[in-house]
Amino acid sequence: MLEHIDIRTARRNELTDITARVKDTVAKSGVKNGIVIVYCEHTTAGITINERADPAVKTDILAHLSKLVPENGAFLHAEGNSDSHIKSLIVGVSKTLIIENGIPILGQWQAVFFCEFDGPRTRKVHIKVIGDE
Amino acid sequence: MLEHIDIRTARRNELTDITARVKDTVAKSGVKNGIVIVYCEHTTAGITINERADPAVKTDILAHLSKLVPENGAFLHAEGNSDSHIKSLIVGVSKTLIIENGIPILGQWQAVFFCEFDGPRTRKVHIKVIGDE
Amino acid sequence: MLEHIDIRTARRNELTDITARVKDTVAKSGVKNGIVIVYCEHTTAGITINERADPAVKTDILAHLSKLVPENGAFLHAEGNSDSHIKSLIVGVSKTLIIENGIPILGQWQAVFFCEFDGPRTRKVHIKVIGDE
Repeated sequence: MLEHIDIRTARRNELTDITARVKDTVAKSGVKNGIVIVYCEHTTAGITINERADPAVKTDILAHLSKLVPENGAFLHAEGNSDSHIKSLIVGVSKTLIIENGIPILGQWQAVFFCEFDGPRTRKVHIKVIGDE
Repeated sequence: MLEHIDIRTARRNELTDITARVKDTVAKSGVKNGIVIVYCEHTTAGITINERADPAVKTDILAHLSKLVPENGAFLHAEGNSDSHIKSLIVGVSKTLIIENGIPILGQWQAVFFCEFDGPRTRKVHIKVIGDE
Repeated sequence: MLEHIDIRTARRNELTDITARVKDTVAKSGVKNGIVIVYCEHTTAGITINERADPAVKTDILAHLSKLVPENGAFLHAEGNSDSHIKSLIVGVSKTLIIENGIPILGQWQAVFFCEFDGPRTRKVHIKVIGDE
């Protein structure tokens, strides 16, 4: 089971909750026990699993990443988005979750986020389910 | 094969070697060739694979992460643990290892660590084994 | 299907494009749909998926990582490579890709890189293919 989803982002830096899409693909697959891989095919974006309850966490994450990797750093790459590539490297372009009883295991506060670091754009994410047996 | 383990941490920031637990789950599964996913269900903790031999490396890692993401940064999130969320994002909440001949492949110096960034707490980690056939 | 490859690096910090090796292992496995895990067994190196087109991106990535984690920081570990361990922690030692129609899904700009942070050395990377059925 493999699904391809499009994500439309609205800002240069943005976290989009895609947990419902991941759960949906797992449900459609019918897999009861296994794993699910969420993969982003871009080099200026990423996937993370982090807090969904308080939106201030998203703001803090994005602001601090921009402090660690400033947009206007002393970079060679002429497109002006070296910061986006470096943020992508730090966050990573994929995450693997475990499926138990037909549902991906997520802690009480966890959600799966698409991380946009060079938007706004339309982005592609792939969700792959692998069953045990 | 899926096992759930509890980890009791003692400090706010701490690395706990859980390699023996991962090897144990792989051994119990009877899987000779496949993969094992180690997943932490928290948003202020993570999983890493790094050096086990010299404890100074753990100290250096934790000290430098706290330098990159200070506890008392200018954060919005009212709980006072935005630094913990950002460290979790940097380190990541899961790692995947390869199983060969019934044992997870680990380099001479590698160990699997649970990374506590907002302890002390009792934490949950899930270990999932997927066999080839 | 599991392959072990050796990578000879030439500098202390270096990104080596290993995409062809990953595609090769996937092709040899005959797996049409599944996943492939690229795992580096070292604690001062890592695996990333990032931009391959403009070599300036590699330069910017390595320079900025060295800014975030300076080689001559105030570290305890006596071997003088704590920066390498911390970079490895940030980048991560493995990545998982999705296989569709016999090929790992990679975006137009994506390549798989071995990340050397304490070279020059000869390094070991393991590539594991898991099929769906």
